[in-house]
Amino acid sequence: MPRTSDTEERLVEAAAGLWHARSYADVGVSEICDVADVRKGSFYHFFSSKQELAVAVIDRHWNNAYETIVLPALAGSASPTGRIHALLAGIGDEVGRSTDALGAVPGCPFGNLAVELSTIDGAVRERLELLFTHQERVLTALLDDAVGAGEVQKDIDTAEVARAMVAYVEGVLLMSKNANDVSVAQRLMPLALRLAVPGAPVEAGAA
Amino acid sequence: MPRTSDTEERLVEAAAGLWHARSYADVGVSEICDVADVRKGSFYHFFSSKQELAVAVIDRHWNNAYETIVLPALAGSASPTGRIHALLAGIGDEVGRSTDALGAVPGCPFGNLAVELSTIDGAVRERLELLFTHQERVLTALLDDAVGAGEVQKDIDTAEVARAMVAYVEGVLLMSKNANDVSVAQRLMPLALRLAVPGAPVEAGAA
Repeated sequence: MPRTSDTEERLVEAAAGLWHARSYADVGVSEICDVADVRKGSFYHFFSSKQELAVAVIDRHWNNAYETIVLPALAGSASPTGRIHALLAGIGDEVGRSTDALGAVPGCPFGNLAVELSTIDGAVRERLELLFTHQERVLTALLDDAVGAGEVQKDIDTAEVARAMVAYVEGVLLMSKNANDVSVAQRLMPLALRLAVPGAPVEAGAA
Repeated sequence: MPRTSDTEERLVEAAAGLWHARSYADVGVSEICDVADVRKGSFYHFFSSKQELAVAVIDRHWNNAYETIVLPALAGSASPTGRIHALLAGIGDEVGRSTDALGAVPGCPFGNLAVELSTIDGAVRERLELLFTHQERVLTALLDDAVGAGEVQKDIDTAEVARAMVAYVEGVLLMSKNANDVSVAQRLMPLALRLAVPGAPVEAGAA
């Protein structure tokens, strides 16, 4: 047995990888403990349940995504829509990396857990809702900047467009996963910015 | 025990409802047999596995969706984009109905199974891919008509926009499920038509 000080971290890391590659339901605590090289009895010293581990896994994925995708996209001197574009491209790149690492297109770790658990587990659902809200706020701020810079029209509801963009990214990652084709994510991702362009034919169709 | 002639149908119906309300993994064959009032031994007379039942459940959901959402939206004298709008509104209405029936926003039965099973089960993944392709073809035809009618610009790749719209709908249903809020689906759904409007800032951001 390795030293115990990083036991919790190894459990979270093992679960994050296994669940992302397969599914939450398909991988149980025993297998996670095996991969993490942790005795099953020790698991419950750190987590009261598999669901509690799921919340820690969500936080880990978000910290990673923030470091590797969000911060690099927000840094630099690109225009607001240029930074949104960099964010979308960064997500596409991450799909490529995780597919190489896991052997199949794994989809979004947040979307996957949302689908599997949100009608079953309140704590996981709430943590994911917090995360999606956080992602929406990042995008809303960028869209507000884009309006200020005259890159998109003033009359858009930036918070609603941000929510639509987060939804679109989730849907693209889902379709890319089901097609098991990285290029689906990489080709469709940039179209998210079209959601910021109001006007026909939406309103025409609704009229 | 009721007569056996509709046993298969009762199993498919029970599984469709239970999986949609909770998840594929959360509901096993025993519970499905209980709800369908079928002996577990009889289950394997009709289906070799839970996965094989999943394929039948997907077909059942699609037949329902086609009857209740697609056909009504395609009928009538609306313009091509008006018909796309009716399709999107029909999906929003269905979310309302299924939420009333199941007690929580259940998300998309296809997207749910795609997330849960596409990295695990090839047969389910392929059936869903067939379905998504079919949905994309319906939308591509409508978008081609919209181009012909001058409702959207000629220079769009209608097949790609159709794929983006299917992805967007899946993402909106996922977000609506995680928020457990029908209004998320109903408010965001119409924005799908914006994906058919090319131009800035997508291309500006990409340049």
